[in-house]
Amino acid sequence: MFTLYEFASSGNCYKLRLAMAQLDIPFQRIEKDITRGETRSAEFLAINPNGRIPVLVTPDNRVLPESSAALWYLARDSKLMPEDPFQQAQVLQWMFFEQYNHEPNIATSRYWIHVLGEQEKYAEALAEKQQKGHDALAVMETHLSDRDFFVGRDYSIADIALYAYTHVAGQGGFSLDAYPAIRGWLERVERQPGYVAMEA
Amino acid sequence: MFTLYEFASSGNCYKLRLAMAQLDIPFQRIEKDITRGETRSAEFLAINPNGRIPVLVTPDNRVLPESSAALWYLARDSKLMPEDPFQQAQVLQWMFFEQYNHEPNIATSRYWIHVLGEQEKYAEALAEKQQKGHDALAVMETHLSDRDFFVGRDYSIADIALYAYTHVAGQGGFSLDAYPAIRGWLERVERQPGYVAMEA
Repeated sequence: MFTLYEFASSGNCYKLRLAMAQLDIPFQRIEKDITRGETRSAEFLAINPNGRIPVLVTPDNRVLPESSAALWYLARDSKLMPEDPFQQAQVLQWMFFEQYNHEPNIATSRYWIHVLGEQEKYAEALAEKQQKGHDALAVMETHLSDRDFFVGRDYSIADIALYAYTHVAGQGGFSLDAYPAIRGWLERVERQPGYVAMEA
Repeated sequence: MFTLYEFASSGNCYKLRLAMAQLDIPFQRIEKDITRGETRSAEFLAINPNGRIPVLVTPDNRVLPESSAALWYLARDSKLMPEDPFQQAQVLQWMFFEQYNHEPNIATSRYWIHVLGEQEKYAEALAEKQQKGHDALAVMETHLSDRDFFVGRDYSIADIALYAYTHVAGQGGFSLDAYPAIRGWLERVERQPGYVAMEA
């Protein structure tokens, strides 16, 4: 069975839980509380020297950090991955966009406000992230204005990767009021077979 | 023929030039000076709404932003990609690590200091990026302590992705003196067939 080292309120970990639910892949969960430094212990650094969750461990005990790499591994040759190689590259394009332009702004703001409850402590940094986060949302809004999902015609791990922190953007101080195409897409994602909600 | 929209002193663009040189893929280059806002023009935003280089355009005119996605597309089924699916996921693991933990610290510092020449203007932000950049280098040093390349036994696009900004880390104020395993790996990368140097 797969093992997922994770933190329940992390969107990066939720991406893998959602994909495994939709692919009917059984897995066990091991919680590591990042707010208590549990991913920086000597024991955990032996699993992932980068000290981050999620980490996916395969049934034959191979260890894979990085949520997007683990998503790709789980979804390759599945209904969550297009068959065409160029569309596969576009899936990666949006997953790299998510990790570079979206997550460091929207997820980090959500972490400070919603998970740590330290909005005032991080007020200055939060203000800096507003513009960059909205820039990322605007790129998504434009792209979704004439299509149902991010790549091709079908739901894929590109949608899972972007859904995880977009649907809780409000918890990071990002209103989605100005993004009707994004809101329609969130509803389409939530109607996919096997959809499971985030937990925290 | 492939077309590469790029900025010559960008390491993200160099990754694609190096891979295409090593894969004997002919391409034409179109320079966009990011210091003059040339990737934020209406003309360029029609090519990449995210306003960033590189953008790879295929011979049949399909457009692919994101350096790492383009690297994956060019290198799939080539000598620069391992055959084993788990190792392919590990290649992506290191490419996502590069874009999340390495590039935003080391490349951004290099951009402020070396490309823009504005070290004093960005002094405070540069100081913040020192620790995170060295954290990323330390993860690389540990990983390379008992292997020649990042994934499996062979040189791959994971090495290209990490080489681009590591070999010019000094231009961003990051000394590699404390990282002998990284320095040995840089030399191995530079001995690979078809290696071409960065230009600026």
